[in-house]
Amino acid sequence: MSLIVQKYGGTSVAGVNRIKNVAERIVGAKKAGNSVVAVVSALGGKTDELIRMAKEINPFPSDREMDMLMSTGEQMSSALLAMAVHSLGYDAISLTGGQVGIMTDDSHTKARIVSIDPEKVSKEIEIGRIVIVAGFQGVSSSRDITTLGRGGSDTTAVALAAVLKADACEIYTDVDGVYTADPRIVPEARKISVISYEEMLEMASLGAKVMQARSVEFAKKYDVPIHVRSSFNNEDGTFIVKEAKEMEEAVVRGVTVARNEAKVTLSKVPDIPGIAAKVFKNIAESNINIDMIIQNVSEHGTTDLTFTVVKSDLDKLLGTIENISKEIGIEGFKTDEDIAKVSVVGIGMKSHAGVAAIMFNALAETGINIEMISTSEIKISCVIREEYAEKAVRILHEKFELENK
Amino acid sequence: MSLIVQKYGGTSVAGVNRIKNVAERIVGAKKAGNSVVAVVSALGGKTDELIRMAKEINPFPSDREMDMLMSTGEQMSSALLAMAVHSLGYDAISLTGGQVGIMTDDSHTKARIVSIDPEKVSKEIEIGRIVIVAGFQGVSSSRDITTLGRGGSDTTAVALAAVLKADACEIYTDVDGVYTADPRIVPEARKISVISYEEMLEMASLGAKVMQARSVEFAKKYDVPIHVRSSFNNEDGTFIVKEAKEMEEAVVRGVTVARNEAKVTLSKVPDIPGIAAKVFKNIAESNINIDMIIQNVSEHGTTDLTFTVVKSDLDKLLGTIENISKEIGIEGFKTDEDIAKVSVVGIGMKSHAGVAAIMFNALAETGINIEMISTSEIKISCVIREEYAEKAVRILHEKFELENK
Repeated sequence: MSLIVQKYGGTSVAGVNRIKNVAERIVGAKKAGNSVVAVVSALGGKTDELIRMAKEINPFPSDREMDMLMSTGEQMSSALLAMAVHSLGYDAISLTGGQVGIMTDDSHTKARIVSIDPEKVSKEIEIGRIVIVAGFQGVSSSRDITTLGRGGSDTTAVALAAVLKADACEIYTDVDGVYTADPRIVPEARKISVISYEEMLEMASLGAKVMQARSVEFAKKYDVPIHVRSSFNNEDGTFIVKEAKEMEEAVVRGVTVARNEAKVTLSKVPDIPGIAAKVFKNIAESNINIDMIIQNVSEHGTTDLTFTVVKSDLDKLLGTIENISKEIGIEGFKTDEDIAKVSVVGIGMKSHAGVAAIMFNALAETGINIEMISTSEIKISCVIREEYAEKAVRILHEKFELENK
Repeated sequence: MSLIVQKYGGTSVAGVNRIKNVAERIVGAKKAGNSVVAVVSALGGKTDELIRMAKEINPFPSDREMDMLMSTGEQMSSALLAMAVHSLGYDAISLTGGQVGIMTDDSHTKARIVSIDPEKVSKEIEIGRIVIVAGFQGVSSSRDITTLGRGGSDTTAVALAAVLKADACEIYTDVDGVYTADPRIVPEARKISVISYEEMLEMASLGAKVMQARSVEFAKKYDVPIHVRSSFNNEDGTFIVKEAKEMEEAVVRGVTVARNEAKVTLSKVPDIPGIAAKVFKNIAESNINIDMIIQNVSEHGTTDLTFTVVKSDLDKLLGTIENISKEIGIEGFKTDEDIAKVSVVGIGMKSHAGVAAIMFNALAETGINIEMISTSEIKISCVIREEYAEKAVRILHEKFELENK
């Protein structure tokens, strides 16, 4: 008998009828002879409703109380889903994160899982019950309720699959799987049937929204095979697995675009050894992540330092730049939010040279200027003007022939 | 410094503005130099919304899952209330029933409190925090979430006041206190300033809806002084306290009416010693509470047995009567739902004779027939036709001069 962990996102349980459909799907897996653990998100729209109420009451609600509030969403949907399973004549029990024994650190609203005690879930499985777990939540060592941040229910599912040594971890969502590019931009985009953890990680952090990078990291670490698929049909979706030899045949797996970054340029930074380190140490201490960095050629003992950060961190960054200015002296700075980052991803790059050249050429031929470049073993990213973002994605998708199997 | 436990009902926190008002009231008590523990119900209307969703998904939801679902209502309002207190610049923390350490038995949807560990709340009070407790809920020994049934948040408040040895327990509601009669029936009804636990218990179980009998029992057992008052003004409400000598001056404290009972008559029951015992043992085993009982004079070796039960138990009773019929043989039975029970309550009755006579006379003079009577040391109840219920209440209120202080 196999053990399957399934995860259902908010859109999959938005409303009574969808909850009933999910219950049928769960019972289907059970009827097929599997033990089933289903992790569920809050009812679609519920989370936004709770945030709106909180902000009306307090524009800056405390993280601890936000977790107390938000965690009710998943508790609610898990109870309703258990009731729906009961009405199909199957035994089920809903459990909160705390009842499952998901222990986290105390970083409210973005807690990290420290440990999971599998005993309770295992016991319920053993007596034949379907276990419905409230996703996205855990408890800290002081028994405060915590939440795991964006994509938290995915993390709950993957972590449970790891600790329970599940045979499969199915992530049900409102799309059919992971695509070679966003189908809204590239109509020829193709569903990817198999992708490696590394590729998926790059895709996720570069803008593909199907799964959060964090849960993929977790899956990679504990070698949990994942199947991302739609809760609205029975088609196979995308399998996310450990790297396999034959996967290298495809040089590029997909093209992504991210529009959530801004470019920041510090001008006339003294060009002395150790200055860049000081700058980025200051920024890191403000808990701001830097993505790409360029340092211009030095002129007259000063240099320009350009880097990208997530737009939502810009406000925080301004204070930090003032400190930097005081400490080391710079002439000024400017920010630019009208950029996009297009990337090509594929583990085939490891053994195929020339991918960068093809990419740069393709953009150049189309008249798109590349402002910044960063590369890793399995991806190449270029910062361009935001207005050319979709055009660039389409050109690259075509050049790397991603529409063909 | 005094410790005050406050309880706010659902109408007091129905909506953002009311939550803010409650926060102001809590902070007011804190500013006045008190430690404050506030117990809160679910946002008005929330409970019905959750029940509706559950029933749409499963007409017969399991009690355990209902508790899982319903408990989110109070968790939500406690978090929102804590945020509202924060926005007034005061430190507060919300706690679920489980976090407070409210241990119950495992009778889901109507659990009874077994113990409360005061440590967590005491620690939070000590460091100066306002503690906001999600009412109505606890956890069983298997760490399942339980709820305390109707009026459960009152019970949470009273139990916390008892275990914390609070100086006061204030029950905030949408009425000004306990009245000598329902003001919608008797416009001259007067707010009672002080009432004994015993009187309040009788009033509650006889139909006054301000507090559930169960939480009054709890208060009596642990001698917790209660102040029932409105959350919409600053007037004193009704103090519920231990019996005091001077309280006996008022012979009758109030008049109540209950319409939730039905009369059941078993006809031609064999009049043999032990038969009534058999009948009522059968009924008790079905978990149905009998209120009043009359046994008619025996004729030809059989007798009629009449009693009242809560209307909602009638369905359950029918099965039981069939068993009784098989076991001991009766001719038949009839039920009558068109009755009302009017009662007068007052500890003064203990030392004043003639109250019953005044009551019976008053009803007789008005042409109201008394069908059943039951009495205790501090109350007299009469079953009458339901159509005369309001008339009877008005007459009795007048005869016992309850409109005068």
